[in-house]
Amino acid sequence: MKSATSPHAPPQRARRLAVEDYVSGVLSGDVALLARAITLIESNLRQDEERAQQVLERLLSHTGKAKRIGITGVPGVGKSTFIETFGCFLVEHGHKLAVLTIDPASARSGGSILGDKTRMEKLCGLPNAFIRPTSAGDHLGGVARRTRETMLLCEAAGFDVIMVESVGVGQSEITLHSMVDFFLLLLLPGAGDELQGLKKGIMEMADLVLINKADGTNRLRAEHARADQAAALHCLQPATPGWKTEVALGSGLTGEGVPEVWAHIRKFYAELEPKGIIAQRRQQQVLEWLGALIHDELRRRFDRDPRVIARLPGLQEALRHGDMTPVNAAKILLETHTSANSTPPEARKTP
Amino acid sequence: MKSATSPHAPPQRARRLAVEDYVSGVLSGDVALLARAITLIESNLRQDEERAQQVLERLLSHTGKAKRIGITGVPGVGKSTFIETFGCFLVEHGHKLAVLTIDPASARSGGSILGDKTRMEKLCGLPNAFIRPTSAGDHLGGVARRTRETMLLCEAAGFDVIMVESVGVGQSEITLHSMVDFFLLLLLPGAGDELQGLKKGIMEMADLVLINKADGTNRLRAEHARADQAAALHCLQPATPGWKTEVALGSGLTGEGVPEVWAHIRKFYAELEPKGIIAQRRQQQVLEWLGALIHDELRRRFDRDPRVIARLPGLQEALRHGDMTPVNAAKILLETHTSANSTPPEARKTP
Repeated sequence: MKSATSPHAPPQRARRLAVEDYVSGVLSGDVALLARAITLIESNLRQDEERAQQVLERLLSHTGKAKRIGITGVPGVGKSTFIETFGCFLVEHGHKLAVLTIDPASARSGGSILGDKTRMEKLCGLPNAFIRPTSAGDHLGGVARRTRETMLLCEAAGFDVIMVESVGVGQSEITLHSMVDFFLLLLLPGAGDELQGLKKGIMEMADLVLINKADGTNRLRAEHARADQAAALHCLQPATPGWKTEVALGSGLTGEGVPEVWAHIRKFYAELEPKGIIAQRRQQQVLEWLGALIHDELRRRFDRDPRVIARLPGLQEALRHGDMTPVNAAKILLETHTSANSTPPEARKTP
Repeated sequence: MKSATSPHAPPQRARRLAVEDYVSGVLSGDVALLARAITLIESNLRQDEERAQQVLERLLSHTGKAKRIGITGVPGVGKSTFIETFGCFLVEHGHKLAVLTIDPASARSGGSILGDKTRMEKLCGLPNAFIRPTSAGDHLGGVARRTRETMLLCEAAGFDVIMVESVGVGQSEITLHSMVDFFLLLLLPGAGDELQGLKKGIMEMADLVLINKADGTNRLRAEHARADQAAALHCLQPATPGWKTEVALGSGLTGEGVPEVWAHIRKFYAELEPKGIIAQRRQQQVLEWLGALIHDELRRRFDRDPRVIARLPGLQEALRHGDMTPVNAAKILLETHTSANSTPPEARKTP
């Protein structure tokens, strides 16, 4: 009704592109079109979501050729500086690098992301580097989905190294680990495990531990930290079967250790790719991702079901007064939800 | 058809009791009937489940009066010995004590549970002590539900202290924390945090940390451990608002520190109950439990949906070959599941 010539078109700032435009643009390595394809993926509009999936499906056969590297560590460990130095090194050596960030809180704290981009100024200026923080969204799969799909787009656009950085709090390392081949954990020299958010789980995911900031007067402390962490790793199962997780020293500031990290990652692929271990990990990741998408959506549909929302306060009241067991309340809500699925609200009447 | 007199009765070893029999038996403090009521709760038969919920609903107004204490710590920390000594102390001081165990793996490793009961011989012999490990089951809510409901039955039967022990691996401490008022963490003197499975999360749940085995030659090491843990706690948010988590020394073997633990717990209730903090925690726990029950069941129904199971291998194959995105596969499976909910399988035909 808004426009006679294009009755269904939503208001758009740029000319709306066809699926084919995105596909050919991304495949030709056009960074402006890559950025627009990512924006399409990030859109919360249902029609954009459908087109985004069509674009992705057309591109899938062109994905999977990059090295997918996850980088994590607590705030203050020097992730941005390290990624910038490491990234510049890779670009200088002929690689095309995409840097993505998983930050579940990015919708709220946009500042830190902006800060990151500002700090990676040198890397930002290089033509073969692409930096894109993933903003949290409201649709199926959330930030993990956006990062995952952005990674695929970058691969289709010819980027051969993808670094995915997590902010390193709570769930985000697990999400990160579920989408990369190689997991690099940055630690500080001389800080206690507690301060570094070092849970046992995170050490178990690392394919390489790098004691960062091992420069100047920190060197000795870094050597000690290396020995400590190597001893701790000794008790753990290897993160990747057939691969020994080592502890290295390095400095994002001076660049020391950076070529060694890259040599380490290349060795990882050289040894494990022929054995099929990388392919196997990726297949496992896709299946787990499918499960996560489904269970998130089941939960979301339940939580947003208007019949459930209408029924909930009365049941909560009954629970509060001890008039009902949680199991019975759960059964009533599940029944409400299931019948709501099969019958439209208008057709049901309460006597 | 099996019997003319009682056509619907399943084969039973003991005479089948009516809901009323369970209710009056439990309320009178009859331990044999309490045990049978717990067995009813643990049954996987649908009709038993319904009766169990009826029994629980009738008893709900008689529950909630006990102190609910959670106890955790790694295997080897001396949980059983400590619980036995602490339990005997409580019974000697006129309390009625129930000891329950959360062990998600109990269905497989029945041995350790039996071992626990054997080790708590002295406590087992006391008339006012009731020890019941919770076996894992296959129905809605699993081992957490059984333990939770067993706790309510014990309260209705007049037990005024409930100790719930977790085996202390993975999820079980979180489950434990979701059903108790007071959370006691046992630690070993002189063992590294790593060895004790000491994740930051678990320290954050503790209302009291007890360095156990602080006897004989261990005493000095225990003093050191106490100072270390107190320093670590200093950086954390208190587990319970308005309550300072302390680190105490004790020995399940000699009984040292046991009266102090009890004094500590009584102080916890004396200070926080009037402020409504215990009641608030319990209400929160019930609501979270409701959510957990529902989301588990949604997931279970999906995973067991025969249409989903039939559709899955083809989609997995498409994912493996990169013919489809996980998001599209998820949408197809969700659609399959939802339509299966609304229409019986016989009524749907594929053209």
